[in-house]
Amino acid sequence: MNEHTSFPMPSENASQAALTRQLKLTKPTGSLGRLEEIAVYMAAWLEEPLPKSRPAAALLFAADHGVSRLGVSAYPREVTRAMVQNFLTGGAAACVLCRHLQVPLTVIDVGVEGGRLDWSGPGYVRAEVAEHASGDLVSTDAMSESTLDAALLAGQNAVQSLASDTRVVVLGEMGIGNTTVAAALVAGLTGGDAKTWVGRGTGVEGPALMAKQEVVSRALERVGTRRSSHELLQCLGGREIAAMVGAMLEAARQRKIVLVDGFIVTAAALAATRLEPRLRPALIFAHRSAEGAHARLLEKLEARPLLDLGMRLGEGSGALVALPLLDLACCLHNEMATFDAAGVPDRCD
Amino acid sequence: MNEHTSFPMPSENASQAALTRQLKLTKPTGSLGRLEEIAVYMAAWLEEPLPKSRPAAALLFAADHGVSRLGVSAYPREVTRAMVQNFLTGGAAACVLCRHLQVPLTVIDVGVEGGRLDWSGPGYVRAEVAEHASGDLVSTDAMSESTLDAALLAGQNAVQSLASDTRVVVLGEMGIGNTTVAAALVAGLTGGDAKTWVGRGTGVEGPALMAKQEVVSRALERVGTRRSSHELLQCLGGREIAAMVGAMLEAARQRKIVLVDGFIVTAAALAATRLEPRLRPALIFAHRSAEGAHARLLEKLEARPLLDLGMRLGEGSGALVALPLLDLACCLHNEMATFDAAGVPDRCD
Repeated sequence: MNEHTSFPMPSENASQAALTRQLKLTKPTGSLGRLEEIAVYMAAWLEEPLPKSRPAAALLFAADHGVSRLGVSAYPREVTRAMVQNFLTGGAAACVLCRHLQVPLTVIDVGVEGGRLDWSGPGYVRAEVAEHASGDLVSTDAMSESTLDAALLAGQNAVQSLASDTRVVVLGEMGIGNTTVAAALVAGLTGGDAKTWVGRGTGVEGPALMAKQEVVSRALERVGTRRSSHELLQCLGGREIAAMVGAMLEAARQRKIVLVDGFIVTAAALAATRLEPRLRPALIFAHRSAEGAHARLLEKLEARPLLDLGMRLGEGSGALVALPLLDLACCLHNEMATFDAAGVPDRCD
Repeated sequence: MNEHTSFPMPSENASQAALTRQLKLTKPTGSLGRLEEIAVYMAAWLEEPLPKSRPAAALLFAADHGVSRLGVSAYPREVTRAMVQNFLTGGAAACVLCRHLQVPLTVIDVGVEGGRLDWSGPGYVRAEVAEHASGDLVSTDAMSESTLDAALLAGQNAVQSLASDTRVVVLGEMGIGNTTVAAALVAGLTGGDAKTWVGRGTGVEGPALMAKQEVVSRALERVGTRRSSHELLQCLGGREIAAMVGAMLEAARQRKIVLVDGFIVTAAALAATRLEPRLRPALIFAHRSAEGAHARLLEKLEARPLLDLGMRLGEGSGALVALPLLDLACCLHNEMATFDAAGVPDRCD
């Protein structure tokens, strides 16, 4: 967050070596499209001319929100806790994807209501910040300054707990009410109005959708303009969003790639790039969510997502579904034969 | 090809059972977007309420073309043979993808010039049709009627050689000159002109691109209108394209899913659906190629491809890259917990 501290830069050498290799592989140049770009992009950030996408790890941050008491969601508040339980017992989409993709999943509880879950198995962390309060945005800030610090730290710690050779960090979230929070945060950071950034979330419509817009409008009015990104994250964020900001900063500092999921994680990515623009080249955007505002938010970040499958689940599900594309981009780059080695004639011209 | 013969239909029972299951899984309905649709679509054709994407198998059909002597390609004719050698020794993109995805790859040589390759390992078949001639479209038909029959049979045989429980057949092709052939065939089948369907292929531009359009125009002129789909495939097709038509027909007859790659395979799919419209529900379209005409061709087939990554390599590479989406769609459908089982509250309304 301080421009004078050291922070990684994309490696020009690794990028150039990867580009040179791409030109020699037995295919017309450019014919693997974005898979070629991804391999070169990863080479640059990982500082590996032959980049690897594994080990990969998934971190899922969960929290409740004061704002969910204001009728902004299609699902009751209790769903956050029930879904965290579902993550731990392996029945949620993220678990199924992680099992199939052989990605270790850690659930970091940064504020699920009802206290620590009764779970002694691995893959569950109840962070200290989970005991802090969550404001409703409209009458009070989402969190205090010390809560924000604790949330950022929870994200940082989660990344520090990963195997040190982890190349790709998949971030996901769970928290009833968090599309409302993300919309407020993005509106605050970009200056747009509530209508631009509020969407259907898990499926609100009619009066509930109006209420959601109203809540965001009032929150924006209360907070006012002329706030720093740090202050906006505190006033309008959520603990899981702040934790993901902390995780992105730490992952990028460690030259890991962050595979960004949908609207909520992208909102965290926007906040993180405002706090530290130098982390932008660590981010790969996995998919365009069906949440309408996500397309606009991706444009703000000049991000071209890999997939567009109409997903809108969260839990890091879109990012996990895109992980095989990173795997395949890397293995094509690393394992294809060159024209010379295979004795294949190159272009006529 | 005879509307009175029996042919599979999507199973209404399996489709309904799969849809019902989707509604009970612990996620907002529709929030997995096209992954939900794919699972239900596969359930219907495979007649499995809990559909599987494996075993999958890749069939790669390779042939040379008389038309490639007319200066329509950016690469010399010899590349077809050299690339088939590259497939066999494992250096081509398709091989790398198949290895990583654990998909067995068979290369079916249906007309590579220079005779049978010196390869005694598995995964290579030299079909009888490979010894037949290939016309240049402009002065002679692509093939005789008996050659077409032999090519269709080669495709049928290739599918019959697969493990009988194979669920997904990935089709790919290799053949210098075959975007020209595919453009001519599609123009013949749809009535469009050469300019609409001729694209850059492996990368032709300027005079070579003009030559390619001219070749297709002259071929269309020679063949004229009022031809049956069968005749057009014979006059304007290629042996690998005809073999893929035969493979699609046989795979569909066996209730297998065909994962369709880019422009050339989609041209074969167009021909196959003209010969047998009832095979359409067996097809899943993997990606939108960077070859401009592919988007138009997909529209003709009312196909919404899964990926759009700017790929234009052929070899089944786009289809292989999409295979993990089928894998993940099926495992999410089959393994996620239901609201009841997980004790997660459903929507408020």
